[in-house]
Amino acid sequence: MNDSAHFGIPDNGSIAVCGLGLIGGSVVRALRAGGFGGRIAGHDTDAALLRSCRAAGWIDEAVQDLDGLFDRHDLVVLCQPVAALLDCIATHAAAIGAGRAVVVDVASVKAPVVAALQAGGAAAMARFVPCHPIAGKAQHGWEAAEAGLFQGKRCVITPARRSDSQAEARAAAFWAGMGAQVAWMPAEQHDRIYAALSHLPQLLSYAYLHSLAARPEAEAWLAYQGTGFQGFTRLGGSDPALWADIAVHNSAPLVAEIDRLGDALGLIRHHLLLGDGAALADAFAGARQFHRAGVAASAAVRAATQVHPIPPVPALTQEPR
Amino acid sequence: MNDSAHFGIPDNGSIAVCGLGLIGGSVVRALRAGGFGGRIAGHDTDAALLRSCRAAGWIDEAVQDLDGLFDRHDLVVLCQPVAALLDCIATHAAAIGAGRAVVVDVASVKAPVVAALQAGGAAAMARFVPCHPIAGKAQHGWEAAEAGLFQGKRCVITPARRSDSQAEARAAAFWAGMGAQVAWMPAEQHDRIYAALSHLPQLLSYAYLHSLAARPEAEAWLAYQGTGFQGFTRLGGSDPALWADIAVHNSAPLVAEIDRLGDALGLIRHHLLLGDGAALADAFAGARQFHRAGVAASAAVRAATQVHPIPPVPALTQEPR
Repeated sequence: MNDSAHFGIPDNGSIAVCGLGLIGGSVVRALRAGGFGGRIAGHDTDAALLRSCRAAGWIDEAVQDLDGLFDRHDLVVLCQPVAALLDCIATHAAAIGAGRAVVVDVASVKAPVVAALQAGGAAAMARFVPCHPIAGKAQHGWEAAEAGLFQGKRCVITPARRSDSQAEARAAAFWAGMGAQVAWMPAEQHDRIYAALSHLPQLLSYAYLHSLAARPEAEAWLAYQGTGFQGFTRLGGSDPALWADIAVHNSAPLVAEIDRLGDALGLIRHHLLLGDGAALADAFAGARQFHRAGVAASAAVRAATQVHPIPPVPALTQEPR
Repeated sequence: MNDSAHFGIPDNGSIAVCGLGLIGGSVVRALRAGGFGGRIAGHDTDAALLRSCRAAGWIDEAVQDLDGLFDRHDLVVLCQPVAALLDCIATHAAAIGAGRAVVVDVASVKAPVVAALQAGGAAAMARFVPCHPIAGKAQHGWEAAEAGLFQGKRCVITPARRSDSQAEARAAAFWAGMGAQVAWMPAEQHDRIYAALSHLPQLLSYAYLHSLAARPEAEAWLAYQGTGFQGFTRLGGSDPALWADIAVHNSAPLVAEIDRLGDALGLIRHHLLLGDGAALADAFAGARQFHRAGVAASAAVRAATQVHPIPPVPALTQEPR
């Protein structure tokens, strides 16, 4: 018999994954690659994808709609885009609250998820643990999914005010089982940090490409691009609808970040107009210092993952309530 | 006897390289790796570097000052930073005009070089071919230099109004010998294109990092960076003084690019404030389309280089005048 303990749920337990895109697909693949011994139910709005995942044996059951899901499984992993997730919480709050499943999501913004749970009532809040695995790539969808996507990455948990501590422990054990390092912070802090570190770079890439695309002559220029262009614009290949969805749900922190960036760019523009190379070099040197801190932090996270691999976490022996 | 023909100068000819940083160092290494049979003279303001390059045999002669250089060599490759290059042209215009050497530079901005040549007179203009090999990396200096740096890259030549056509042919043959694909365009067009494709991304990286560095809490955030952060900020590791030098010498096109980017970012900000996800997705989709064009153009340049390797170009059999 396989041992499912290291995925945080009982042996022979059951997991439902809703949304079989990059993240949901990677959860399914990681469960299969890790020898998960229980049942996997899958749901997706793409009926053809759902059928082929069932036919290929990636999932044991193709779920047609979400009614009843929250009482039939030990863990429900909601991997829909943000707007669809918020709709799902609003529609199924009562079922979430009444069900036995611990529910986690994977959305890139967390304050709207916590707000939807608060609107859904205390029982839903207790069963639902808002999560954000920090594992993206430019490609999206089931085909881009990979079993190792979460290995060595962070997963940030942003508990709602009344999250159940046993539900939180199960969620943390699940992500540790996926190979992620779990961190905890308030939803508002999460959204400010990722507006600055992730959403703004994404929007800057789009804005930069958008400003080039507006000029008819610019496409011919691309034959002359240098070595840095592809790296700087890589984020511009990401899915527009997915990022529009994230951006509108984190708009206040993002507008603040855009304004801060505008100030920094305005300072550089000012030095350029004055031809003040020394002031520019000073500003660039400060930026490079922060860049070096970023490289060091990235290396430290990787080293911590390699030197101290996350041990399997025993499953909860009791149901969380 | 070695054959130096494919470097565009006579067999047993002589090349001087001024500035043994990333670009000048890579020129020296490419000459040695390519079996250059003539003499290499080197100059650098770093006397210790110059001595060690001479001791290691990378150069045959350590030049202490530039007087007389332009008459003793077949080709002089000026690889100083922009400001130092412009000083050099101003100081040595008469010697350049009177010398037998063809002179090329490698500066990332070209209109100021052409202007300095025009100020230096018709004779200097005739001997000097402004060039820009599109081959950067985040690391700088002799240690970062590599023989293959120019292989498959573009080298843009921006002739001054009165460049000598035989001098231009020699310059083109030299860069083809370095493995680069030579392209020709006016200096002003070059500077607009590279403001948009190279200098603005560099400044955006610095501005973004600068806006983060201004916040005491941001360094702790770096432990939570996602997978895209390093790629987006890679340019921020580049040398501040070198880029300040480039930026102030291309300030007018750069200010125009900053303003265009500001417009694009302002549009995104506007959609965010209105919560208009559809308008955001439209803007992002246009950006992604341009991103795809960029990826295709990059692949096309690589494929052209691989499928049609640049043949050795025979050296001019006569001196250019």
